[in-house]
Amino acid sequence: MENKKPLSIIKIGGNIIDNPTELSQFLSDFSMIKGNKILVHGGGKSATKMAQSIGLTLQMIDGRRITDKPMLDVVVMIYAGEINKNIVAQLQANNTNAMGFTGADGNLIQSTNRNHPTIDYGFVGDVKKVNTALLETLINNGIVPVFCAITHDKKGQLLNTNADTIASELAIAASEVFDVTLNYCFEKAGVLADVDDENSIIQQINTALYAKLKEEGAIHSGMIPKLDNCFNSLSKGVKKIQIGHHRMLKNSNAICTSIEL
Amino acid sequence: MENKKPLSIIKIGGNIIDNPTELSQFLSDFSMIKGNKILVHGGGKSATKMAQSIGLTLQMIDGRRITDKPMLDVVVMIYAGEINKNIVAQLQANNTNAMGFTGADGNLIQSTNRNHPTIDYGFVGDVKKVNTALLETLINNGIVPVFCAITHDKKGQLLNTNADTIASELAIAASEVFDVTLNYCFEKAGVLADVDDENSIIQQINTALYAKLKEEGAIHSGMIPKLDNCFNSLSKGVKKIQIGHHRMLKNSNAICTSIEL
Repeated sequence: MENKKPLSIIKIGGNIIDNPTELSQFLSDFSMIKGNKILVHGGGKSATKMAQSIGLTLQMIDGRRITDKPMLDVVVMIYAGEINKNIVAQLQANNTNAMGFTGADGNLIQSTNRNHPTIDYGFVGDVKKVNTALLETLINNGIVPVFCAITHDKKGQLLNTNADTIASELAIAASEVFDVTLNYCFEKAGVLADVDDENSIIQQINTALYAKLKEEGAIHSGMIPKLDNCFNSLSKGVKKIQIGHHRMLKNSNAICTSIEL
Repeated sequence: MENKKPLSIIKIGGNIIDNPTELSQFLSDFSMIKGNKILVHGGGKSATKMAQSIGLTLQMIDGRRITDKPMLDVVVMIYAGEINKNIVAQLQANNTNAMGFTGADGNLIQSTNRNHPTIDYGFVGDVKKVNTALLETLINNGIVPVFCAITHDKKGQLLNTNADTIASELAIAASEVFDVTLNYCFEKAGVLADVDDENSIIQQINTALYAKLKEEGAIHSGMIPKLDNCFNSLSKGVKKIQIGHHRMLKNSNAICTSIEL
């Protein structure tokens, strides 16, 4: 069995993106991570703010946002334009050779428009395939890919796509050729055993403990799809997943939640 | 002397971008061009429309647009987000493996903030250097780069940059490794000898004829910097420059203006 090269995939969300000081600190820390790496970023609040400032009404069905055509235009502008390109420029200033992508670029992530039996989510994509060969070529040429949460259907349509899903699908696909560690950064230090106690970080979760925590109700509703997603990724070849505050990337002794099968 | 591979660089402007039918036809024609190619696109009217819809006032000094911070945010969103990513998605639908870039991506085009003795243009960049090695690697891997008119200063700042200049600077830099033909597409069939006569296309301009036409006043003010730029590019290694309607790309017998030294 050949030795695969390591690859770190790091996903950041709105809590970092919406705070310029935090984002700048994170990008500096990210630049210090040695070896092959990919950044995936979510959207933050600026798409909602932009939508409001041009008079769009946010469409919600069953608490889920619907991406109609005007909203798709806004998320493409903000995610692929404003946020992605400012992150790339800041990483370049930190001597990281970042390149910003949607899934349409190089056909890196192709998706299909979600076909739900009862809800029309609009221009939302579910990931279908990753162009692993091109991703590997880019990484082998010293490029640090930076993905925003936009994909395409290869028929000319851009699609709004969940950033956590993009991170996990990239991780699964890249596992063919790399030893992948997937890091989800959020505002807390890790998954909490008690949602009211910031110090109750569960440092390791495996399949058995996860079943037990779900049964006990210790892991709350919003965390379940996230963790299901993690175990799915691990079962498909991802080596290791960490969930926590982005300081875990800088300090390997920082407490976070490690997930394994 | 080794044989260089041919490379076509095509620049399109607002007249194509603002017309969805025209853009779609152009992108289909562009996809049919054989061999290595790069697309450079300008902005069109949507940045101005977006600026107005969020209540920005366009700043003009001596008839030139000033790119203040709010306007920079808008052009980044529109050029690098909306326009660039929709072009890339449409090219992918045409089986062209397009990848959309600002100059910040892969540090492909680094510029310096314009330092004018009397006018503060704001966040406007003058191209300083092109990352030719990475551009060549991308092209050799079958990628069709699509550049919008945004660059960066390598210190974290994105900069608004003239699309014609980006096209010519890319052409000059790429001439190190490719035989470059640079095509400027605009609404007319070529450079007119008589601005009121659409049939007065000058089919060939060389240095001597250019001097004569300027002296006679046949070439009007707006065309002078464009042609100066062309002769500069040719003197720096670009093989051939064509100016005309984009149908010249599809039909090699279509009348256009060819420029040579």
